[in-house]
Amino acid sequence: MPSPLHDHLTALANTLRWHSLEQTSLAGSGHLTSSLSAADLMAGLVFSGNFRFDVDTPDHPNNDRLIFSKGHASPLFYAIWAVAGGISDVELKTYRELGSRLEGHPTRRFPYAEAATGSLGQGLGIGVGMALNARRFDRLPYRTYVLLGDSEMSEGSQWEAVQLAAHLGLDNLVGILDVNRLGQAGPTQFGHDVDAYVKRLEAFGWKTIAIDGHNMSEITAAFEEANRHRGQPVMVVARTIKGKGISFLEDADGWHGKALDGERTDDARRELGGQPSAEHGRILHPENLRPTVRPVLSPEPFAYDHGDKVATRAAFGHALRRLGHARPDVVAIDGEVGNSTKADDLEEIKPEQFVQLFIAEQTMASTALGLSLRGKRPFVCTFAAFLTRAFDQIRMSQYSDANIVFVGSHAGVAIGEDGPSQMGLEDIAMFRSLRESVVLHPCDAVSTERLTELLASQDGISYLRTLRQSTPVIYPDDETFTIGGSKTLRQSSADVATIVAAGTTLFAALQAADELEDEGMPVRVIDLYSIKPIDTEALRRAARDTGHLFTVEDHYAAGGLGEAVLAALADDPVPVEVMAVERRPISGDSAGLLERSGINAAAIVERVRQRTIQHVSMA
Amino acid sequence: MPSPLHDHLTALANTLRWHSLEQTSLAGSGHLTSSLSAADLMAGLVFSGNFRFDVDTPDHPNNDRLIFSKGHASPLFYAIWAVAGGISDVELKTYRELGSRLEGHPTRRFPYAEAATGSLGQGLGIGVGMALNARRFDRLPYRTYVLLGDSEMSEGSQWEAVQLAAHLGLDNLVGILDVNRLGQAGPTQFGHDVDAYVKRLEAFGWKTIAIDGHNMSEITAAFEEANRHRGQPVMVVARTIKGKGISFLEDADGWHGKALDGERTDDARRELGGQPSAEHGRILHPENLRPTVRPVLSPEPFAYDHGDKVATRAAFGHALRRLGHARPDVVAIDGEVGNSTKADDLEEIKPEQFVQLFIAEQTMASTALGLSLRGKRPFVCTFAAFLTRAFDQIRMSQYSDANIVFVGSHAGVAIGEDGPSQMGLEDIAMFRSLRESVVLHPCDAVSTERLTELLASQDGISYLRTLRQSTPVIYPDDETFTIGGSKTLRQSSADVATIVAAGTTLFAALQAADELEDEGMPVRVIDLYSIKPIDTEALRRAARDTGHLFTVEDHYAAGGLGEAVLAALADDPVPVEVMAVERRPISGDSAGLLERSGINAAAIVERVRQRTIQHVSMA
Repeated sequence: MPSPLHDHLTALANTLRWHSLEQTSLAGSGHLTSSLSAADLMAGLVFSGNFRFDVDTPDHPNNDRLIFSKGHASPLFYAIWAVAGGISDVELKTYRELGSRLEGHPTRRFPYAEAATGSLGQGLGIGVGMALNARRFDRLPYRTYVLLGDSEMSEGSQWEAVQLAAHLGLDNLVGILDVNRLGQAGPTQFGHDVDAYVKRLEAFGWKTIAIDGHNMSEITAAFEEANRHRGQPVMVVARTIKGKGISFLEDADGWHGKALDGERTDDARRELGGQPSAEHGRILHPENLRPTVRPVLSPEPFAYDHGDKVATRAAFGHALRRLGHARPDVVAIDGEVGNSTKADDLEEIKPEQFVQLFIAEQTMASTALGLSLRGKRPFVCTFAAFLTRAFDQIRMSQYSDANIVFVGSHAGVAIGEDGPSQMGLEDIAMFRSLRESVVLHPCDAVSTERLTELLASQDGISYLRTLRQSTPVIYPDDETFTIGGSKTLRQSSADVATIVAAGTTLFAALQAADELEDEGMPVRVIDLYSIKPIDTEALRRAARDTGHLFTVEDHYAAGGLGEAVLAALADDPVPVEVMAVERRPISGDSAGLLERSGINAAAIVERVRQRTIQHVSMA
Repeated sequence: MPSPLHDHLTALANTLRWHSLEQTSLAGSGHLTSSLSAADLMAGLVFSGNFRFDVDTPDHPNNDRLIFSKGHASPLFYAIWAVAGGISDVELKTYRELGSRLEGHPTRRFPYAEAATGSLGQGLGIGVGMALNARRFDRLPYRTYVLLGDSEMSEGSQWEAVQLAAHLGLDNLVGILDVNRLGQAGPTQFGHDVDAYVKRLEAFGWKTIAIDGHNMSEITAAFEEANRHRGQPVMVVARTIKGKGISFLEDADGWHGKALDGERTDDARRELGGQPSAEHGRILHPENLRPTVRPVLSPEPFAYDHGDKVATRAAFGHALRRLGHARPDVVAIDGEVGNSTKADDLEEIKPEQFVQLFIAEQTMASTALGLSLRGKRPFVCTFAAFLTRAFDQIRMSQYSDANIVFVGSHAGVAIGEDGPSQMGLEDIAMFRSLRESVVLHPCDAVSTERLTELLASQDGISYLRTLRQSTPVIYPDDETFTIGGSKTLRQSSADVATIVAAGTTLFAALQAADELEDEGMPVRVIDLYSIKPIDTEALRRAARDTGHLFTVEDHYAAGGLGEAVLAALADDPVPVEVMAVERRPISGDSAGLLERSGINAAAIVERVRQRTIQHVSMA
């Protein structure tokens, strides 16, 4: 039965449609039909009193969160905030223009975007992070809403997040599934079979509410029910019509991601009843609650003795344990390998700061993003090799201004018997490839402890690469390290070359240096623990002083430490020999594999010797 | 009721347990308990007459396929083939030794491993490829069996593959879910709640058969029923005990991935009743059927006119269309963006060679792997940016000796208004990072057509990067291209520098060269369409002749074209200026974004001019 509220909401939905049309027609591109299908759902959520948000304070900690997982429906998203009075109708006209905050897919440059989306299947995992934050960390009553497309339900990442949201009992998380039947290339797997989604979601432990996504009383009732429901996350599964409201677009194939031309725009305007009134939608304010802020203290000290054999992953766990006491914002996210990565050190002392997400790397990354955007400092911990599973999520985090530390253990062939599937050999390349990232690979316990502390306060996306095997402590406890720094460990005025290494290979470099010195060929040795940013100055000095560099890494060559050194010296280069894993790795003992891969001390000695003899014979 | 067959199978299961114990105790590492839980299931499958395989001919096209998705249970896997007579008991003793085919996790170096596994959650997708091959391509009655762990059911990739297997109606695919309750770090999400899996799988359209995984009559009956079932894939959901058969390991936490010491090994041997008889298990032979081989013909010719404006993605689609007629093994795998990548060109003419997997990049990669290992030549097509979603699957393919072509469209900031989420800016780095890979980035239609033809016969993992926007045809139809080649497009004896570019930026380089020539600064221009392998000779020549290189790419700097050039010249370098996307990309028009990113013609002219003036003033 229609009511004044429903009439009002329907009018606002019409305004959302109008703005979606105007934005896309003016831009000449953008996803109009995907916006139209969800307009009623969004009006019925945001302006019905179910959603609470302080439009003047988008960063209010107790605002409800609205994430468009179907980021291509950005015209609708921007229209909501125009109707809410957060942005002007004039700014709407800048949609997709160079420099506009209203990008083709939302990024954090738009203040109402909780996270950047546009790579499908990621919004729900981000929502898990935000809902978990409300429940476990900030202890605030805000709710997290995620608008999902039906096409993106084919992404495994969705079901990973669905399964975990239920496992975590996140009843403050509400999904809105816009079942508009049509994807980019035609019908979706399930078309308008709403029950296909309902039965899957219920089997995965969610409460579902199936509705007609264009019936305003069903919509508002659904959100009221969703907000009352306890013990489970809730999915409002809405049957909708793609292109709804403009007859020639409704349920029609071939209009995905297309804007209308001038004539069709005029037809569409007529169908929407012409320019709507400038009436704004009202959003209820949230309760003005704030999380209790616990003071950030300095980490406790630590003590190692020179020569102690400690795996850097163990030192990372130890650092996490020290940080856990001092920093209530530090969260470890585990993929059921916490006893390998040593993330479980934090679990032991601060179980509430440890999140077990099982073997679900994509949701680990997305949940970390959600937590980061609500002010936490997540450390995402698994084997270096398995972080590749979340590359798309990691890549997208760049556009959300996230502060996340990824920690990859079990680097390189040095892990030995477990074989290539478990060896991180592309991880440096992956993390370096991000535009602004930090990539650290310390060799001993002291440097790992210190760098972990620095990462806990480092903004952006960072990567810490740790070792499975124990290595000797070479630095004194009070040694200082910087992001972007390096340590020159061997140096003389007679150095014939420089060996640049990190992690496992640093010890091969030191051993090689000793042997070469005995042979009358002193070399410089640099511990390049910070691969990105890189210590260009120290490398230039070494280049100038020694004329020749050898880089050694337990990683494939492309994109790794060697290429980072080459890039640093590109403008004023010296010869560099990149020693990296070239033969296909297999199972075996660690020492045997390092030898076979040509990255042990003997291989370095041989290469330096060859080069030096060649040099002498050429001179 | 026990039967002689069941007694025999139980005895063989005991032998599998014995071999699993012996391998792990001798190696001192490996996953004993995860092998023990599945020993009865495997004996009851492989040696019961349900599984058909010619042990002397592991590559027989009609062999049933057995994939250990839980690759860490490799001791059990090797034991099966020892009991089957495929490998000797002596070879079993080499488990995890350097050089042994019996690696910590199976790779294709072991002839009975259908694919390399060990990164969890990938086996089912590979199975989808193999089952799809049997059904649609080879039209053979072989069945595909995938052994799954319960821990790995938290991976979204599993549910992606589960959903698609049902959608494709693959009733020749049988999963065996080993619900042993315990993961690496403790209980799984669902523990021994077999029904949690049953209801999820049934909601996803699978037939399920829940059994006691240690009851041989239930096991054999389950496989008989699974093999009879039509219309749906089947999951045998087996409740098992981790460590089954050795009392002190049974259902006990803390034993994941651990081998027994000498004393405990002796205890375990006694529990298994001592050294079993040398009795072999018999595997039924498959029907000796072969796929009909259709001849591989040359692709048809094509015709472009110089200056035609054609997007390289369109040229790729055209090449695929020509290849489709000639090559029945060429398969396009689409992620619901075939009208963007132009993979749908193949759908139009050869729908049976086109596989729609919806938005499911991980399963696209895994299915391609399965098809490749059964002799097909898959082209996996989506946006370059979204291939990052499948990095772990792509990485693992290296160890399966797969032949797969990945095609990433919508490269770089040049795509414009859709914004950073849709821009491939790390894709070159990702594909270069693989140990042996081919990375091609042609700039025009002719080079794209020719290189697509070459890739259809190129072994290994290859990547073709295509452009959204149209570019002019610059090569004549009869121009030849090679993997590892380049084209020098501008050259004179007076060249003051060399510009190296590919794709979008090649046209900027050509325009810059024209402007610089007008200013009396002729430059060499190299179309580096093959970024890996790279034409070191042409680059060295350019370095020698012109003394200075500028690389320009529509990609982030790290791991990209510029670093590939640096690596090629590392040993005998000249100054290289790497021009890449440095500012954070946003939405906007293509030309505006290329300007903003500093990779258009004006930026190149400016950089070369600066350098040359500097050079002159220094001289």
